[in-house]
Amino acid sequence: MIILGIDPGYAIVGAGVLEYRNNQFRLLEAKAVTTTPDMAFPQRLLAIHQGISELIAQFRPQAMAIERLFFNTNATTAMDVSHARGVILLSAAQQNVPSYEYTPLQVKQSVVGYGRAEKQQVQEMIRLLLHLNACPKPDDVADALAIAVCHAHGAGSRFVGRS
Amino acid sequence: MIILGIDPGYAIVGAGVLEYRNNQFRLLEAKAVTTTPDMAFPQRLLAIHQGISELIAQFRPQAMAIERLFFNTNATTAMDVSHARGVILLSAAQQNVPSYEYTPLQVKQSVVGYGRAEKQQVQEMIRLLLHLNACPKPDDVADALAIAVCHAHGAGSRFVGRS
Repeated sequence: MIILGIDPGYAIVGAGVLEYRNNQFRLLEAKAVTTTPDMAFPQRLLAIHQGISELIAQFRPQAMAIERLFFNTNATTAMDVSHARGVILLSAAQQNVPSYEYTPLQVKQSVVGYGRAEKQQVQEMIRLLLHLNACPKPDDVADALAIAVCHAHGAGSRFVGRS
Repeated sequence: MIILGIDPGYAIVGAGVLEYRNNQFRLLEAKAVTTTPDMAFPQRLLAIHQGISELIAQFRPQAMAIERLFFNTNATTAMDVSHARGVILLSAAQQNVPSYEYTPLQVKQSVVGYGRAEKQQVQEMIRLLLHLNACPKPDDVADALAIAVCHAHGAGSRFVGRS
């Protein structure tokens, strides 16, 4: 099974593509799709849509796993990230890839076995599972890989109804 | 000038297309793009993207005017609508239509001349400006037309940076 993991954002979208077979992971791609503040916001959405659509077309994943957003301290950021997350979900739907979402707690629980794990612990586990010398950078890409691993581990709840 | 006005949502997207020439308005299209809760959320985004993209391809507007969202009481709704708004902004960017955004206050001020105007007053003004026997329904479509009128009246602030 090929899984695309996504850590959503509008300045940096973390993306990781894994193959999972016989309980073994293989890293196919680790990539940050980036945009800059000098771009008009719709142009940033366009760049994100293109970047993710190209990844999906190239690797034909069976599933996209994406972090669930929660509204916390910064309403403007949460709404801007939601715009970007909308175009990412659209990219998957346009190519008939089903989307699954996971909370940060589910991801840590699944990858490290402990929902309050530190970022460092998650990255070390990703490095080990993917047989790498170092965990891919930036953190957004490492997070995307962790979300893909979480999906492979079978916690999957498919989107139903709203986000 | 042809203007596409949008009242963003995920269950109902209000859309209205106006021609504005010699200080006169002509209604070209008034439409609600709708989705239902039984659809998976990414499928709802797909339907919204298709509906808006078709309108843009058909009428080739010079501008899209869309309501600016504010975070208020319901965080989940604001984030879901932001997902939909993201794919609507994408539709415009993909067809090189610049997007402009307006607050409800700006729209009322521009259409009725009074920022605290009632919904009824806005709808009556839309009816008069567009030479109609009745204001188009549902309210989302009437709101979309009001946003387009607001843009025609020249309050336009183009998107820069984030939403």
